[in-house]
Amino acid sequence: MAQRLIVIGGDAAGMSAASAARRQLPQDQLEIVAFERGHYTSYSACGIPYFIGKDVADTTELIARTPQQFRDHHAIDARTGHEVLEIDLHRRAVLVRDLTAGREAWEGFDQLMVATGATPARPPLPGIDAAGIHGVQTLDDGIALRTVLERERPGRAVVVGAGYIGLELAEALSAWGVDITVIGRPPAPLPGLDPDMGALIATAMEGYGMEVRMEETVTGFETHAGKVTAVVTDQATIPTDLVILGLGVTPNTTLAADAGIPLGETGAIAVDRRLRTGIEGVWAGGDCVEKFHRVSRRHVSLPLGTHANKEGRTAGINLGGGYATFPGVLGTAVTKICDIEVGRTGLGELEAQAAGFDPVTAVVDSTTRAGYYPGAKPIRTKLIAERGTGRLLGAQIVGEEGAAKRIDVLSVALWHETPVEELLNIDLSYAPPFSPVWDPVLIAARKTWQAVETDRARTEP
Amino acid sequence: MAQRLIVIGGDAAGMSAASAARRQLPQDQLEIVAFERGHYTSYSACGIPYFIGKDVADTTELIARTPQQFRDHHAIDARTGHEVLEIDLHRRAVLVRDLTAGREAWEGFDQLMVATGATPARPPLPGIDAAGIHGVQTLDDGIALRTVLERERPGRAVVVGAGYIGLELAEALSAWGVDITVIGRPPAPLPGLDPDMGALIATAMEGYGMEVRMEETVTGFETHAGKVTAVVTDQATIPTDLVILGLGVTPNTTLAADAGIPLGETGAIAVDRRLRTGIEGVWAGGDCVEKFHRVSRRHVSLPLGTHANKEGRTAGINLGGGYATFPGVLGTAVTKICDIEVGRTGLGELEAQAAGFDPVTAVVDSTTRAGYYPGAKPIRTKLIAERGTGRLLGAQIVGEEGAAKRIDVLSVALWHETPVEELLNIDLSYAPPFSPVWDPVLIAARKTWQAVETDRARTEP
Repeated sequence: MAQRLIVIGGDAAGMSAASAARRQLPQDQLEIVAFERGHYTSYSACGIPYFIGKDVADTTELIARTPQQFRDHHAIDARTGHEVLEIDLHRRAVLVRDLTAGREAWEGFDQLMVATGATPARPPLPGIDAAGIHGVQTLDDGIALRTVLERERPGRAVVVGAGYIGLELAEALSAWGVDITVIGRPPAPLPGLDPDMGALIATAMEGYGMEVRMEETVTGFETHAGKVTAVVTDQATIPTDLVILGLGVTPNTTLAADAGIPLGETGAIAVDRRLRTGIEGVWAGGDCVEKFHRVSRRHVSLPLGTHANKEGRTAGINLGGGYATFPGVLGTAVTKICDIEVGRTGLGELEAQAAGFDPVTAVVDSTTRAGYYPGAKPIRTKLIAERGTGRLLGAQIVGEEGAAKRIDVLSVALWHETPVEELLNIDLSYAPPFSPVWDPVLIAARKTWQAVETDRARTEP
Repeated sequence: MAQRLIVIGGDAAGMSAASAARRQLPQDQLEIVAFERGHYTSYSACGIPYFIGKDVADTTELIARTPQQFRDHHAIDARTGHEVLEIDLHRRAVLVRDLTAGREAWEGFDQLMVATGATPARPPLPGIDAAGIHGVQTLDDGIALRTVLERERPGRAVVVGAGYIGLELAEALSAWGVDITVIGRPPAPLPGLDPDMGALIATAMEGYGMEVRMEETVTGFETHAGKVTAVVTDQATIPTDLVILGLGVTPNTTLAADAGIPLGETGAIAVDRRLRTGIEGVWAGGDCVEKFHRVSRRHVSLPLGTHANKEGRTAGINLGGGYATFPGVLGTAVTKICDIEVGRTGLGELEAQAAGFDPVTAVVDSTTRAGYYPGAKPIRTKLIAERGTGRLLGAQIVGEEGAAKRIDVLSVALWHETPVEELLNIDLSYAPPFSPVWDPVLIAARKTWQAVETDRARTEP
């Protein structure tokens, strides 16, 4: 008789697990049912800002597979509009509410995949529940916001939060001719960057006419007739027609925690390298689980679609009887704002210090192509290495077209714990349309190595 | 008293060595004299096709440092128009001819850096010395060819050779509205690629109106009044106004070999990881030396500016009393032809077989950005892995804008002998403007791993 797999959450991690499990086992050996409380399965959450910003015309472009496709091509019973309310590990069953019909029923499982995702932070500030204040996490949220932009044509918008989501949403709003203010607490946008690199982003945003208010804290919202009219901070009151919350997300762990599935040190669900939770036959992946950071050797909460897909695949192979591991993350991320591209991997200078390393750094300005080649753009590369050993700890890139994706070269170097002295000789490609003869990554490695050496000469007796 | 370093060859390897030595030792400890027989020092030879193709307006843009700058800022006596005719290792002196004054003199050295470069192959075919047949190696050659294009406005041109140089020159000629024919002996352009990948290049070139004649051998040239009028092959006679030879280069080793400096198995000068030749105090680097290929574990002749710079720097640090090594090459290369970008690293499928490996391959078609994001372009990635172990042996990329430079991710993976099973989980960056959620590199790694696993399942008892 077929075993039964229940998947909670029909997006990246959940449906990747379902698909990978199906590749391992046919329908007569494994029945797969996935419950998704929203209206869509397997969509690109990272694409939502580009739908809001009109780069993507229609939400259907963001959807990798519909429930119908899962049923027809993969024999996976994906049910949208179904919310799991409770997990009973003793009975091996979940309580599911059909949100359309309003019915509840228990559904038994042999194996369970928990992929409950995350929810945007919504701090309990005065006025936060007013109309016109949007969090953007699901495709439904994105559709709601784009509808408001189309129908109401707001003249002013405030984005609260200057992280990746906040900045991507600010860029999206700029396509609507809205006056944009971005408010953030850290000294510079993108707290994933060191402030010296983040400052370049603020300058670029201001160059595009955005107001960037850093080191400022939102304390509440003014409203009129239930609708937001201003954002109140510790420094000013900023009138607005629309507020976007880009304050990061919190892992959805209540369902798992209530059932007794162990959480980790970060508060997200704890999993091992095979994506097993502490409960036999219960797997988890995506934004609701914590990840192992390979440089800091600590667990972190890092809600990124690329990890969710890899974790889902790994869990699916394992629960289908195969063997796969997910060996952890480097904190690699990339984004684009106001024609500025940003990439980072590993630890920043400040993060390295916080993780107990003693970092040496170097910053190099170069170009994306040979200086004489048409279309050469500026690229600034910062490397962070361990004092003494010169081992690469992290890297950050800020530049224009063709800059950011180069961070992957450093991600692979970091994955292998490459010393900068070794990195500076690695055989990277060169031709004038693609880089200067000394690739910016290699120049940065050389300069970092010099900093390590200079430091070593000074400190050795 | 200061030691004296003589450098033979004033381009990438020679002047990098001179500069690195100068950073190690001041003028009162090391006198540096560099002899260059051409008119220029430290220019980008790789930039010459872009000068010919009018992407670069003036040759001054290609020159990193003039002899005057070397004298003024680095206390390096760089003498152009000076050809070294003989090396006397016993007397530790070189015989130098001042090409302008017509004088010869012996110049003594304590240390010698041989950076004599390479010369374009010019097979002894009937008519090869006719006017209108151009090899393009030096900046002087490039200026001569551009002058011909400007003054004579030829209507037809034939490029003999379909390697990197041949194709870059064909692209350059297309800026002049010339009817272009490219003739090559292998089955597809760019013999550095496997034929299945190279075939994409031929299609792109034909789409741009070029005639691509592969598996065809040039046997001679027809001439009239000392000027070329046609290229004769084993299959046809092709009338033309201009011929460009892009047949690769031969290391300039005669000077070294005549002096008794040992050559290696490839016929180029043999050096160790510190760029020492077999003779005490004699160093060499650049196109005249052979390189250690880290994947095939064999020595190869691979004339690329990026290696010449690294080797020069390494030699300069060492001869200045420091310690540095050049750990070998991967055969990484990148180019652009007719809006098609090409990257390769390591061994191709055929090269892997020739090197004694038993390769497994996978080819993946993907996009450079998320499929729904504007500007997503096609990218085809081929990975070559070792049967059984799944160790990465090489990679090839052919695609449109934003495709080729991704080869560096695979270069670093290859440098570290990464198995494809490990590669598929590496934390590469993702955002819709930069890649699909599964990066093309990771999809290719996954598919290669599947090929390795399928093969293993089939062959194990």
